[in-house]
Amino acid sequence: MSNKPSILIVGAGAIGSFYGAILKKAGCSVSTVVRSEYDAVKANGITISSPLGDLSYRPDHLYRGGDTPVAEPDYLILCVKVLPGVDRAALVKPWMGSTTRLVLIENGLDIERELAEAYPDNPLISCLAFIAASRTEPGVVEHKAYGKLVMGRYPKGIDDNCRELSQLFMDGGIRIDLTEQVEGERWRKCLWNTPFNPLSVIANGADTRTILDTEGGEDLIRAMIREVMDVAAAEGYPMDDKVIEQNITGTRKMPPYKNSMAVDYLNGRPIEREAVLGNVVTIAQRHGIPVPHLNTVLVTLKMRAALEGRD
Amino acid sequence: MSNKPSILIVGAGAIGSFYGAILKKAGCSVSTVVRSEYDAVKANGITISSPLGDLSYRPDHLYRGGDTPVAEPDYLILCVKVLPGVDRAALVKPWMGSTTRLVLIENGLDIERELAEAYPDNPLISCLAFIAASRTEPGVVEHKAYGKLVMGRYPKGIDDNCRELSQLFMDGGIRIDLTEQVEGERWRKCLWNTPFNPLSVIANGADTRTILDTEGGEDLIRAMIREVMDVAAAEGYPMDDKVIEQNITGTRKMPPYKNSMAVDYLNGRPIEREAVLGNVVTIAQRHGIPVPHLNTVLVTLKMRAALEGRD
Repeated sequence: MSNKPSILIVGAGAIGSFYGAILKKAGCSVSTVVRSEYDAVKANGITISSPLGDLSYRPDHLYRGGDTPVAEPDYLILCVKVLPGVDRAALVKPWMGSTTRLVLIENGLDIERELAEAYPDNPLISCLAFIAASRTEPGVVEHKAYGKLVMGRYPKGIDDNCRELSQLFMDGGIRIDLTEQVEGERWRKCLWNTPFNPLSVIANGADTRTILDTEGGEDLIRAMIREVMDVAAAEGYPMDDKVIEQNITGTRKMPPYKNSMAVDYLNGRPIEREAVLGNVVTIAQRHGIPVPHLNTVLVTLKMRAALEGRD
Repeated sequence: MSNKPSILIVGAGAIGSFYGAILKKAGCSVSTVVRSEYDAVKANGITISSPLGDLSYRPDHLYRGGDTPVAEPDYLILCVKVLPGVDRAALVKPWMGSTTRLVLIENGLDIERELAEAYPDNPLISCLAFIAASRTEPGVVEHKAYGKLVMGRYPKGIDDNCRELSQLFMDGGIRIDLTEQVEGERWRKCLWNTPFNPLSVIANGADTRTILDTEGGEDLIRAMIREVMDVAAAEGYPMDDKVIEQNITGTRKMPPYKNSMAVDYLNGRPIEREAVLGNVVTIAQRHGIPVPHLNTVLVTLKMRAALEGRD
């Protein structure tokens, strides 16, 4: 038996499956809680193709929601989408021991608070994934590129838990940036995600090139980034104006890219509208900061959701 | 032979067919220029069901683009959609005599100028239709309700041509409001159309109820109306603040309504994006008036069009 920490992954989409594989490779016991994928993973384990090699593995324990845990994990890594209808605090409850460190690898802004409030005595580690990976069928993941995590204690700082966990990830072969200000890093990532992801949904799956090349598109992106920056500054994370052009130029250097929110939307899956956009608008309103461009996109997405019965 | 003025209708959609029928009823000779509907109208004339009775008629002459006119009409009534790809000045050219009065029954803002410049010596009459009618198949129109025209000389005033034509329409059974400021009336109509029509397209056909009942929807509509009002005021047509709530309240009193722009969009037909929205943003930019909500909707519509190869 390994004397490495035990890991439980909750949510075995592309993200959860991939980072579970990395920790498995680092020598940890890795168990998984899945929902619809149970039968496939039970039969075949988790299959992952990757530039890092074949990362396929069988979880040490495979759970469904409602199962009785064999043991409380040292690290519970939550990788489900952040959706209004998903009570994440309730989802992890059966597996949260008194010393379990709760780790989020999830997108969006202000997504930690409800978990911090539900588990005030458990260390909460917040991570941002920079990765291109997709789940191609139940239990099968294609890792295409990247994989870096930005990691810090929530709401701020770096502690021994972060250091231990980041070492394990690095042992497994990926890069980790530890940060004292993980919330600031979330704002920084949202400079891109908050404009590009919802715009792509509104435009029925337009890729980055289409968004930027449309007449007025670059300026709309600039205006939206500026609004996110204004809110970030009010939250204590001011950024230099030059990041606007950096985001535009960086995006132009990438191959045309259809982001995962648009792919999810086009496939009828729920999108992280509130985590990526709605929370930014809510925080802006709290500060009295006008965000007309962001708000227009948010409300039109809500109209669509209402029409389609998605909300 | 009638000594009433001769009429040529260019564009035999719901609007052109209906107002042609009214003038036919008033005793005018009414000819029609059609495109794709030629065979159907040649065979069966124009069929119109209406609360006013059966308005079906056969055009006195039926033309296709490129045909040689039998005679230049006294009034040429242009009822085609205002689309960037449609050169309306060229479209009417074969039928424009030296004394032909050119009449527009079309939606949108700043849509007269290119025709006024092309035919500076012909009187130009600009009309707004308040009507619920739809073309159900080639040559067949269902008139559901209303029918009033607001009419004036472009750019302003009321002349004898307006008076003659309005009397003919009234003889045919519909209501006419003559206005000294038809541009102002266009701004007034756009207070509604410019927010509601494009939002419904963005929301994939959301009706008025869905738009207003979505969280943040009413306030978004208010913000967009406010922006249109700001531009209208800069153009010399200030309006009282109370029109904002009048538009909201009036819309709430109507049955839920899916506007024609959304219907066109969902059926793959081109939409009058520039006439209804783009021109407002262009005029705003000329005045240096910020219209972030309108611009966000405009640019996202352009992104969609680019993606769908519609532009």
